[in-house]
Amino acid sequence: LMRAEIAEQPAVLAAAVAECEQAREVGALLRRRPPRFVLLAARGTSDHAALYAKDLVEVEVGRPAGLASPSVWTVFGARPDLRGTLLLAVSQSGASPDLVDSVTAARESGALTVAVTNAPSSALAQAAHVHVDIGAGAEVAVAATKTYTAELVALYRLLVGDHGIDRLGDAAAATLAAGDVGAVAERYRFADRLVTTGRGWSYPTAREAALKLMETSYIAAQAFSGADLLHGPLAMIDGGVPVLALTGRGATAAAMSPVLERLRERGADVVRVGPGGDLPVVADALPEALAPVVEILPLQRLALRVATARGLDPDRPRALAKVTHTW
Amino acid sequence: LMRAEIAEQPAVLAAAVAECEQAREVGALLRRRPPRFVLLAARGTSDHAALYAKDLVEVEVGRPAGLASPSVWTVFGARPDLRGTLLLAVSQSGASPDLVDSVTAARESGALTVAVTNAPSSALAQAAHVHVDIGAGAEVAVAATKTYTAELVALYRLLVGDHGIDRLGDAAAATLAAGDVGAVAERYRFADRLVTTGRGWSYPTAREAALKLMETSYIAAQAFSGADLLHGPLAMIDGGVPVLALTGRGATAAAMSPVLERLRERGADVVRVGPGGDLPVVADALPEALAPVVEILPLQRLALRVATARGLDPDRPRALAKVTHTW
Repeated sequence: LMRAEIAEQPAVLAAAVAECEQAREVGALLRRRPPRFVLLAARGTSDHAALYAKDLVEVEVGRPAGLASPSVWTVFGARPDLRGTLLLAVSQSGASPDLVDSVTAARESGALTVAVTNAPSSALAQAAHVHVDIGAGAEVAVAATKTYTAELVALYRLLVGDHGIDRLGDAAAATLAAGDVGAVAERYRFADRLVTTGRGWSYPTAREAALKLMETSYIAAQAFSGADLLHGPLAMIDGGVPVLALTGRGATAAAMSPVLERLRERGADVVRVGPGGDLPVVADALPEALAPVVEILPLQRLALRVATARGLDPDRPRALAKVTHTW
Repeated sequence: LMRAEIAEQPAVLAAAVAECEQAREVGALLRRRPPRFVLLAARGTSDHAALYAKDLVEVEVGRPAGLASPSVWTVFGARPDLRGTLLLAVSQSGASPDLVDSVTAARESGALTVAVTNAPSSALAQAAHVHVDIGAGAEVAVAATKTYTAELVALYRLLVGDHGIDRLGDAAAATLAAGDVGAVAERYRFADRLVTTGRGWSYPTAREAALKLMETSYIAAQAFSGADLLHGPLAMIDGGVPVLALTGRGATAAAMSPVLERLRERGADVVRVGPGGDLPVVADALPEALAPVVEILPLQRLALRVATARGLDPDRPRALAKVTHTW
């Protein structure tokens, strides 16, 4: 199932061009009346889509943004004043009670609330002022793949617009066809820890790649921004720790270059993920802000291959269900 | 050095009652004219103090808050509109160029900027509108300990006030004297991965504990909020993965209870950190919001003990310097 859903992505992303009229309308509304501040609420894979949206808000919309902790409402029972704030909740299932409660509380506190989900009839979709359907089609494998990339596209359209999305289908197909994921999967056959790192647009990809490896292959995968890595965690890196480095493009690539240099000094085993890397990403035709949509693809394939090489079933990771309920 | 600086904390925290007049003044100013929104900028250990401040802002001040990514300014070169925003930068050394650049850019974009550091003559202190000295005295060990707890107190005073801080010295002394850290350190002698988890007020502690273990003992320590743990990472937990669980008090304890239940089902090796736990925290005399100041203490001691048991020098972790410069 995970294999099929990974392979479906070029078609899902190509379809995104025509679909999601609602995202376009909400997006136009937000661009006419930009909120003072944007809060993102999400869990798991969708939290990495939220992290991407935070960058879009700050870089493309020009407003400050932050990731909300649902616990502020659900554990602390606090009710911060949210007038002038947009709360964007992102969830594949739209079912986790903490997100539904967060949206309800934020709405009562004056926020405009928008839910981005793959489940138009979910409780989350109903709790928010506006719902945007990511239109990924049913996703059955426990490890989210196509709903992640479809969330990214819906958020891009909502916050930025349509520029470049017509090229996503081709870029996704080219990236899925490139490179030998099997060789890297072989190399990680017995790894029980691993570090992923990226900066700028690639940092959400580093986080999502680590989660996929944890979920499907049970590796202790730790994601760090390239800068945060140097503020402490670098000490634990040596030749015995595999590193997946998102090399990025443009300013992101320049910012990662000193990080790669430090990793080399530590003797780390670095696999480069990006244009012309060990795991190639074909994103030249896309605006930099859309590159994350295809950058995750070789890493989804890698997580799948490591899991199957270990005799694990990536469709049914132990201890997990497709929909997680947290409070 | 790390041992001495850990032991100094009751005195440093007791002294905080008299000192930090500036924090009190800035705090009073902010309470009279609360910003619409608060951004926190920090790296490494100070980033966990920033995470604590985010909870204080949302729960105690009642405004939304978010952790800033310095890369928004330094890598993306973006200039989001920050009118009505307070930018709080937290840094022991006040020296990292990305934080100085973030404060400078935020100030130009309309934010009120406050730097909280242990270095009054640092570039960061000078770049901000206002500087608050945490007054921890010189910290020499690479792994930050007393500057972390002093940052928490300065942020509490800035954002909340003085309530309860006169009891911190005694609570810190009692917590440092309680429990057998050595037995847990023995148990982790050969662990090469570990998970820390906590919710609510205890989540920053879980993050900081993981960083201390990475820095001093080179363990792949992963921190998760109790809720995020259930959204994927739980799959990698089994009897071979040690878990340090912050059990907390009040609402935090109630929210962690189902997480502890799931960990038990997975057969995890759980060490409980909190009131009456395997690593006891003596915080009954403190308001819940001040508990994180003492909750980290047994975990600092643990990181030190694991490092020395492994023959490592916790004062000089490989690949790290006391001041980290990132861009």
